[in-house]
Amino acid sequence: MENGVDILIRGGTLLTMSEAMEIVHDPVIGIRDGKILFVDRQDRLTAPIRAKETVDASHSIIMPGLVNTHTHLPMIFFRGLADDLPLMDWLNNHIFPAEAKHVNREMVYAGSLLAIAEMILSGTTTFCDGYFYESSVAQAAIDAGMRAVTAQGFIDPPAGGNGNLSKYIEIAERFIDKWRGKSGLLTPALFCHSPYTCSPDTLKAIKKVSRGAKVPYIVHLAETRDEVRMIRERYGVSPVMHLERSGVLDDATIAVHCVWLEEKDLEMLATRGVKVSHNPESNMKLASGVAPVPDMLKKGITVGLGTDGSASNNDLDLLMEMDTAAKIHKVFRGDPTVMSAMTVLKMATIRGAGVLNLADSIGSVEAGKYADIILVDTRKPHLTPLYNCYSQLVYAANGADVSTVIINGKVVLKERRFPGLDIEDILDRARKIAGEIGKTGR
Amino acid sequence: MENGVDILIRGGTLLTMSEAMEIVHDPVIGIRDGKILFVDRQDRLTAPIRAKETVDASHSIIMPGLVNTHTHLPMIFFRGLADDLPLMDWLNNHIFPAEAKHVNREMVYAGSLLAIAEMILSGTTTFCDGYFYESSVAQAAIDAGMRAVTAQGFIDPPAGGNGNLSKYIEIAERFIDKWRGKSGLLTPALFCHSPYTCSPDTLKAIKKVSRGAKVPYIVHLAETRDEVRMIRERYGVSPVMHLERSGVLDDATIAVHCVWLEEKDLEMLATRGVKVSHNPESNMKLASGVAPVPDMLKKGITVGLGTDGSASNNDLDLLMEMDTAAKIHKVFRGDPTVMSAMTVLKMATIRGAGVLNLADSIGSVEAGKYADIILVDTRKPHLTPLYNCYSQLVYAANGADVSTVIINGKVVLKERRFPGLDIEDILDRARKIAGEIGKTGR
Repeated sequence: MENGVDILIRGGTLLTMSEAMEIVHDPVIGIRDGKILFVDRQDRLTAPIRAKETVDASHSIIMPGLVNTHTHLPMIFFRGLADDLPLMDWLNNHIFPAEAKHVNREMVYAGSLLAIAEMILSGTTTFCDGYFYESSVAQAAIDAGMRAVTAQGFIDPPAGGNGNLSKYIEIAERFIDKWRGKSGLLTPALFCHSPYTCSPDTLKAIKKVSRGAKVPYIVHLAETRDEVRMIRERYGVSPVMHLERSGVLDDATIAVHCVWLEEKDLEMLATRGVKVSHNPESNMKLASGVAPVPDMLKKGITVGLGTDGSASNNDLDLLMEMDTAAKIHKVFRGDPTVMSAMTVLKMATIRGAGVLNLADSIGSVEAGKYADIILVDTRKPHLTPLYNCYSQLVYAANGADVSTVIINGKVVLKERRFPGLDIEDILDRARKIAGEIGKTGR
Repeated sequence: MENGVDILIRGGTLLTMSEAMEIVHDPVIGIRDGKILFVDRQDRLTAPIRAKETVDASHSIIMPGLVNTHTHLPMIFFRGLADDLPLMDWLNNHIFPAEAKHVNREMVYAGSLLAIAEMILSGTTTFCDGYFYESSVAQAAIDAGMRAVTAQGFIDPPAGGNGNLSKYIEIAERFIDKWRGKSGLLTPALFCHSPYTCSPDTLKAIKKVSRGAKVPYIVHLAETRDEVRMIRERYGVSPVMHLERSGVLDDATIAVHCVWLEEKDLEMLATRGVKVSHNPESNMKLASGVAPVPDMLKKGITVGLGTDGSASNNDLDLLMEMDTAAKIHKVFRGDPTVMSAMTVLKMATIRGAGVLNLADSIGSVEAGKYADIILVDTRKPHLTPLYNCYSQLVYAANGADVSTVIINGKVVLKERRFPGLDIEDILDRARKIAGEIGKTGR
């Protein structure tokens, strides 16, 4: 500590989300060179610490930044464009046509910046995204100073048949080469849309690249009953077993949704070490179903939370997603003990980091990890009284209670203002693009 | 208009929530003597209007204030005290003992003020409350300038048997006499806790008083499977039929929860014109079940939204409650069309007003009604782009987006500050009381 720190956080209550779930009252946290240098109690400090910047966390809950394990950031432009419709009508007559017409590099970049602003304002410090023109998402993350896993998307032509595999492989390899090592904030990844929109050959080809490059492989899986029916008709097995047969299940696979699983599917996911991204609000809004998360947890599967894209949620607020996650499983199982506030808070932090294979470097506030830290201001009527921080965060707080956000040791949000982003410009650009989509998108 | 108006709201987009669901772009709304004098379009004004106060609503959605049809305000002191527990453990070992020890006039008043501040900050302008020491709730509503239906609560001794009926009747009559006509903001009412905690004689005696005085009669009904079992064991019929036999069902009865209903129960509620308060978040958190609201709506039953008390939600934010209400029915029925954003927005405004028999005077922004109006600031990342106001409010907004609140023609919240409440004092008093509860409450 002789050289001082870049940032010193003092006061409040720290939820470390460490394995022991240690809570530190009136803590002092030192941050240097992007990392957490030490975590201690103020009353144990023997000498003053020199700091370039001090953050007063009195009256705040301090905790690791939230990890959004599944998003499609540019779909923020389709938020509220079409809702309350049958899934296939929504996809085929609204979302897919709007994507065909409006998705381009500029739109993806502008939408990603807007979505990143929304996420920072609601306490998310890491997101995992899958879409097209994903390089624009990656660039937006770096420009905004946000940590991200960005996955280039692959989907076969809707007419059926394979896409051009060698072209896919080239795109995948180029994407990884372009972004690997470019920034400590960024992990490139690959995203096969689903077993019903990607042929087995496509699934395998992309998995081969991701294995070779040791990057995450993301796939929507068992989201709807229709998907299960479709895959059974085509391949004679469940979606999970179809992926197993295709050889793409391993501990670098992030399976998103996993709503319709049989017992042997669950066992296979556990055996292969597959990670699961649970997106309860999207699954509810699209009437897909309720994922068997309590069973996944019993089997030791690592489960994180995701918001999904803004067209099917319609926000990127993980604090509200936690509330929904805790409640939906209680009512679905008829058991209020089945999903505790602490469990969902783990899913939104350390377990989410585990889903992205980043649990060694983020997801908790411990010395040695990257300094991805948020402060929640508790001096508000709806957060008073405060008996239990876990309960309060899950059941009473929402994204707007996040006051300060630190990512990679930099303050990216301070008292809900962005030191480094021109938010008015981001909103103006987004409104301009949305104006065009609103005119012709539907 | 020759005399000018007290408040003039200009600009933005007005969702009137009138029967025709009229939307007015760039409106002008005149308010005088607590009421809405006129609603027009700015471009149709021929002469300037004199106003004591002008509210600039550019970039805002203007809409009627939200109506919370079921709360227990003082339970705000038990928010987060005990969560994720089996219902009977939660009630018998945590909530009931805490109530026995800590509920008193001062606690009820302090808790009500805190809860009212939370509700105003999240856009609620009318609440319907049932608790003990309800005069303190009523006084808090008047002191804070909030519209309320306040219901004195009755519950028989847990040992069983009737309470003292003549004493009950005296308390009920005295409560109504005390508050009737005291303030245009307040409607006194009576609240029998439930068919399993109130004997048929108690249910009937209180109903007789409420009929005579023409005030609402509130009762928890068919909340859990256990209740249905208990009532069937005791009386041989369903909870609804038990209340029908007791003669307490009519169009001034507000039945809260109504989760476990059979077809004939639904028909009986419709036949008697009973109003229903739907509390989805509480029903989810306590794992009670999902109320058959789509069926209620098909039968023409008037359904409003409620948050329930803060111990079982754990907030009073109706904007988030709308989100949950829309989503839970979709996933529960496997049909994304079953509950639209517009339908839940009606439940939170004009239908909620109907539940309280106040639809002639509040619940929509129309000339002649009381001026209970809120503004939602849309200049935020999570509310951008904005294609559809109903969707945005239900699926993307939360209480913190409410900027300005007008109740009874008075601005009670302006840019999220209270002109008339000392919020720091309210928080301090609440923290003091909560400090005692936290020490000994569990």
